[in-house]
Amino acid sequence: MRTQVGIIGAGPAGLLLAQMLHQRGIDSVVLEARSRAHVEGRIRAGLLEQGSVETLSEAGVADRLHREALVHRGLHLRFGGRDHRIDLSGLTGGKVVTIYGQQEAVKDMIAIRLAAGLPLLFEAAGVALHDLATARPRVTFRHDGRDQALDCDVIAGCDGFHGVSRASIPGGELRLFDRVYPFAWLGILARARPMAEELIYARHTRGFALATMRSTSISRLYLQCAPGEDLAQWSDARIWSELRTRLGARDGELEDGPILQKGVTAMHSFIAEPMRHGRLFLAGDAAHIVPPTGAKGMNLAIADVRVLVRALEAFFAGRGEALMDSYSATCLDRVWKVQRFSWWMTQLLHRYDGQDDFEEHIRIAELDYLAGSVAAQTTLAENYVGLPLG
Amino acid sequence: MRTQVGIIGAGPAGLLLAQMLHQRGIDSVVLEARSRAHVEGRIRAGLLEQGSVETLSEAGVADRLHREALVHRGLHLRFGGRDHRIDLSGLTGGKVVTIYGQQEAVKDMIAIRLAAGLPLLFEAAGVALHDLATARPRVTFRHDGRDQALDCDVIAGCDGFHGVSRASIPGGELRLFDRVYPFAWLGILARARPMAEELIYARHTRGFALATMRSTSISRLYLQCAPGEDLAQWSDARIWSELRTRLGARDGELEDGPILQKGVTAMHSFIAEPMRHGRLFLAGDAAHIVPPTGAKGMNLAIADVRVLVRALEAFFAGRGEALMDSYSATCLDRVWKVQRFSWWMTQLLHRYDGQDDFEEHIRIAELDYLAGSVAAQTTLAENYVGLPLG
Repeated sequence: MRTQVGIIGAGPAGLLLAQMLHQRGIDSVVLEARSRAHVEGRIRAGLLEQGSVETLSEAGVADRLHREALVHRGLHLRFGGRDHRIDLSGLTGGKVVTIYGQQEAVKDMIAIRLAAGLPLLFEAAGVALHDLATARPRVTFRHDGRDQALDCDVIAGCDGFHGVSRASIPGGELRLFDRVYPFAWLGILARARPMAEELIYARHTRGFALATMRSTSISRLYLQCAPGEDLAQWSDARIWSELRTRLGARDGELEDGPILQKGVTAMHSFIAEPMRHGRLFLAGDAAHIVPPTGAKGMNLAIADVRVLVRALEAFFAGRGEALMDSYSATCLDRVWKVQRFSWWMTQLLHRYDGQDDFEEHIRIAELDYLAGSVAAQTTLAENYVGLPLG
Repeated sequence: MRTQVGIIGAGPAGLLLAQMLHQRGIDSVVLEARSRAHVEGRIRAGLLEQGSVETLSEAGVADRLHREALVHRGLHLRFGGRDHRIDLSGLTGGKVVTIYGQQEAVKDMIAIRLAAGLPLLFEAAGVALHDLATARPRVTFRHDGRDQALDCDVIAGCDGFHGVSRASIPGGELRLFDRVYPFAWLGILARARPMAEELIYARHTRGFALATMRSTSISRLYLQCAPGEDLAQWSDARIWSELRTRLGARDGELEDGPILQKGVTAMHSFIAEPMRHGRLFLAGDAAHIVPPTGAKGMNLAIADVRVLVRALEAFFAGRGEALMDSYSATCLDRVWKVQRFSWWMTQLLHRYDGQDDFEEHIRIAELDYLAGSVAAQTTLAENYVGLPLG
């Protein structure tokens, strides 16, 4: 098999890249280790920046998103018994964020690709990357019971943090930055009316909590917990009670409902530099992980893809490799800013056990300052709706 | 001896308090442990917020300040080979900062008080505070070879971090917050034209540097150094060379000159809560210390004094103790915000040896973000010129 761009992974980054390349007349083959059902059922973040929605729209994969997604013009911070609304739109010249489950975007892009008859192979086993430092990189894998090989001009590693792509780069070529936080999130999905029309981020002496949603009838709720938290200790009743306390819910503000799913999410910041090795380009979680507090994971992946598409378009049009050469630096400039914002939101809103009182008070002072400063609120808002895309 | 307000310490807080009380017909006696020459020669910070200058003006002690001080409408950040000007005035609706040595303000206030024949006793030895929990607190001390006692309605502890006032509060009544930074500043005063018309804050891989001034012919320059730095290792030539490197000085931009003074300044954040015990009220450094990076020390003292004057005015006018009761909370709300800003400036611009690479890169990303965001620059500017006074 032969293609221009071999794409490893059918998550948001890989699927969007395939679609945007297709729009530009560039062939690609998408290889995914898991089944379609698995990929479509993977629950991930669901908050899109203004620019991410624009990118999905331009890619022609946002029709259902525009019909079904929830548009938010603000969010709430609760701390010290106060509720403070951040007017995201008012502070950013009208920008919004959009709630649309990542797996919904993935379903849309899979359907569009398959309907167009374009190559997307699920359950591709034993994927291995070869000859990355040459002009003819190659992917080998097993599919439909046969060993296969895919010859490419370029390979895009869009297979997430645990994928084979980053692991295929020789040791010593990557510089890794890592921060594991001393807490995690206990998350639930519940059939219950969302607590509010907008997100509520709460800092409480008992720990962080977040009330978000998937739709007008499905709530997504999170509690700060220990990294190795035992879910067996968390009855539904305890979860709802703890959520009410930390979120400062008034009577009737947070309604119970059947809990459809429970899980513990680790909190991790990770960056690999550079995001390129020869003809392999990493995009999305394969290159970087952010803690979920800033709701940036999928948005970073989309931003990477925009930069990569521009570089590949130039390359295949015979305009040279300059944009491929600058791909990593261009992406990382944004990645570090988004890491900073995600780290800032995380440390501002979580409880650090055993931490010195000075920093704890500094954070409370920062929240107090934020509540009273239009400029400080604007820094939060402009990062939350998304820094300008390159 | 009898007075309404016994003021311990003839620094900016004590002298300003005495003057503002005098304007309101409230008697005070100022007791200072050191000599007049010592107090007038003590070199401290010299940057005043907009509101601090307004307060000194209203107090009638700013005539020379208005003739001699330098008014700054911006400052420069240098990092990564770039120079970025923060337009303090443009970002804050026209506010400015003013360069005027603290000891000059102290000289002015001493001269005014003595010219008015109001009590200000230097070299008051063995100052001790008594009966603070009663309505008749008392100060004993030795002056002019005699043991003396001062009966007061209220005592103001304005005697700095090492003073007797905070130490007179019973153990266990204060909650202390403390942060000692793993670096210090090597500072010089030099007869040399300032490097620029405005301050230059530099973050360099070799450490922080700051170029400021006392006048158009006297420069004040700082280098990040170790807390126990040995000044004997720092020849004048080495200091100038290191300053040029860290400040990114272009040819001729930083001229040498005779170094008039060299010293090492520790970097410390400290807060004592509450700022009151019975009839003793702490103000300024007696209650809190900030690292010098944000140039806030004297400004915090002036802000405390404003709040205290309002409380004492109400009390002596027979309007009760409500404002005295809220004094500490009112001050601390501002103190913590200013601590946060000073901590933020400090950690953003200094080199932390042995620190993990993740946080180092987060700080660089924050500077990059700052350089590109009007909102982020506004947060710096509005804190630097001074948050609104209560």
